[in-house]
Amino acid sequence: MIIDCHGHYTTEPRGLLDYRKRQTAAFAEGRALAPDFTAGDDEIREAIEKNQLRIQRERGVDVTLFSPRAGGMAHHVGDETTSRDWTRACNDAIHRVCTLFPRNFVGVCQLPQSPGVSPASCVPELVRCVEELGFVPSNLNPDPSDGYWTGPPITDRHWYPLYEKLVELDVPAMVHVSTSCNPNFHHTGAHYINGDTTAFMQLITADLFRDFPALRLIIPHGGGAVPYHWGRYRGLAQDMKRPPLTELLKNVYFDTCVYHQPGIDLLLKVIPAANVLFASEIVGAVKGIDPETGHNFDDTKRYVENAAALDAEQRARIFSGNAFRVYPRLKTRVTR
Amino acid sequence: MIIDCHGHYTTEPRGLLDYRKRQTAAFAEGRALAPDFTAGDDEIREAIEKNQLRIQRERGVDVTLFSPRAGGMAHHVGDETTSRDWTRACNDAIHRVCTLFPRNFVGVCQLPQSPGVSPASCVPELVRCVEELGFVPSNLNPDPSDGYWTGPPITDRHWYPLYEKLVELDVPAMVHVSTSCNPNFHHTGAHYINGDTTAFMQLITADLFRDFPALRLIIPHGGGAVPYHWGRYRGLAQDMKRPPLTELLKNVYFDTCVYHQPGIDLLLKVIPAANVLFASEIVGAVKGIDPETGHNFDDTKRYVENAAALDAEQRARIFSGNAFRVYPRLKTRVTR
Repeated sequence: MIIDCHGHYTTEPRGLLDYRKRQTAAFAEGRALAPDFTAGDDEIREAIEKNQLRIQRERGVDVTLFSPRAGGMAHHVGDETTSRDWTRACNDAIHRVCTLFPRNFVGVCQLPQSPGVSPASCVPELVRCVEELGFVPSNLNPDPSDGYWTGPPITDRHWYPLYEKLVELDVPAMVHVSTSCNPNFHHTGAHYINGDTTAFMQLITADLFRDFPALRLIIPHGGGAVPYHWGRYRGLAQDMKRPPLTELLKNVYFDTCVYHQPGIDLLLKVIPAANVLFASEIVGAVKGIDPETGHNFDDTKRYVENAAALDAEQRARIFSGNAFRVYPRLKTRVTR
Repeated sequence: MIIDCHGHYTTEPRGLLDYRKRQTAAFAEGRALAPDFTAGDDEIREAIEKNQLRIQRERGVDVTLFSPRAGGMAHHVGDETTSRDWTRACNDAIHRVCTLFPRNFVGVCQLPQSPGVSPASCVPELVRCVEELGFVPSNLNPDPSDGYWTGPPITDRHWYPLYEKLVELDVPAMVHVSTSCNPNFHHTGAHYINGDTTAFMQLITADLFRDFPALRLIIPHGGGAVPYHWGRYRGLAQDMKRPPLTELLKNVYFDTCVYHQPGIDLLLKVIPAANVLFASEIVGAVKGIDPETGHNFDDTKRYVENAAALDAEQRARIFSGNAFRVYPRLKTRVTR
């Protein structure tokens, strides 16, 4: 069985995108606009079947953990109410897909974060998504200012109310930034990768998992720059008298969204197979075909299959075994 | 011959650090304090001999391209005058070292950048360092706000007056951030690596080298996350109808400050040997010994020597041949 733990709903129904336009226009006029969009089952079904599901089938992926478009979260837009309404609409759209295709998609929610607002405000939507919608569950944006990093690190107590609920529900979070409003940071080429690197380094310097030993975080995009600079991070931790990185690996996982064979080979050489989750981020950041291989850049299944460092048991863990461990609620949604 | 293109003066004389304290205190009182520090030759000689030169000798490195402590540039401190005075002092300190040890150190200058100030203001100090002090020449901080990225990308016309002078002098720049004031970014663990990744992605999205075909930029720390995500960057460039990355490699170089063998192996697998410059960033970011190898993390010469992907000719290019090409003024300072 193959589970892709990182897919985004990048083929949203027009009605959802139209709601967002009307909502931000209303905000500019000082009004809130509660979730209000319609989309026919046929429209949703067609877009999924032509894109995500077609690719799943072509590549032999069974299930995708499916979350709203990451760049669309745009937590900097509007205020707390704007974010809450938009998030609810996006998560409802994900739920529609998961209801139409219950064997292929399991929901991962966006959180209604907003710059300067306590993440405690995200708890009701998290609970709704896990308990009512069956999500497994959430992305967490470490920079709700979307490119200016004006909030506190993810290790700050500011975030603790959210972590308490994640632990109570026994669900993990993927630390995934959204769009970048900062012209210095291309969103999928710099902000995404920098967000991953930044989050991991924050975890090195703090004792988050002493306070939350059961919290599980996934760092996407192959962990940003971290595996490539694994020696630097091991060395920095040692110089700072921090625990060895193997301690962090009790709580931290990396996905396989690395779009060439040498990158995946490095990832699997330095990070234990128990800490790697299969993912391809479709339909996502890179859509084209690699002229060097004739296959899509984001067809990460090939790279994992070709990785010489893995034996069959390790490969099976990466493709699905680890996912069942990191996302225990998957068991109720997916039959192995 | 082995040339390390990335070493920092992290063992500065007490007088220099004391000047900085007095200077920032004066600024707080609304006054500028012109460069004013003393340091005995013996003090400078002893710190260098016990640290950088000892390590050079132990590892068999002949020459280090030597620049002021990167974290110490701190361009956000004070104003344009503060930065100009501090930069002049730091570059003078580098010149002292290069004069005392002319066979071992060649100067690379800090620039007197300041947030919001045109980089044209850096031209006089650049010219002084190249023409009077014999530097080869400069670091360039892509984020003078030191962790908030409030200025324009390095591809913006804002930077062009500096690039014009770099080209005129036929000298390259290493794109190297300074300290981070942003609590989200650990300076050597996140800000450095993010700065590298960010700069490269800026170069992908713009036509800087169409305007400056002779400009040469070095991205340190093994190119940040770039080689690990080389497939992502190739794919993004293709999706955006940008030129293939091989075009950028006519002007962009990566150094070998990657502190473990698998990282260096990846770098040398995906980046042509002609675009890699030997460097170890001593005495720098990571000072300890890797318990897995028994050698210093930053002893990158071992990794380059052990890299199976290289033949002898490629290794020689990385160790020194490329440096003479990228830094043509080295020829007047160093005899092969």
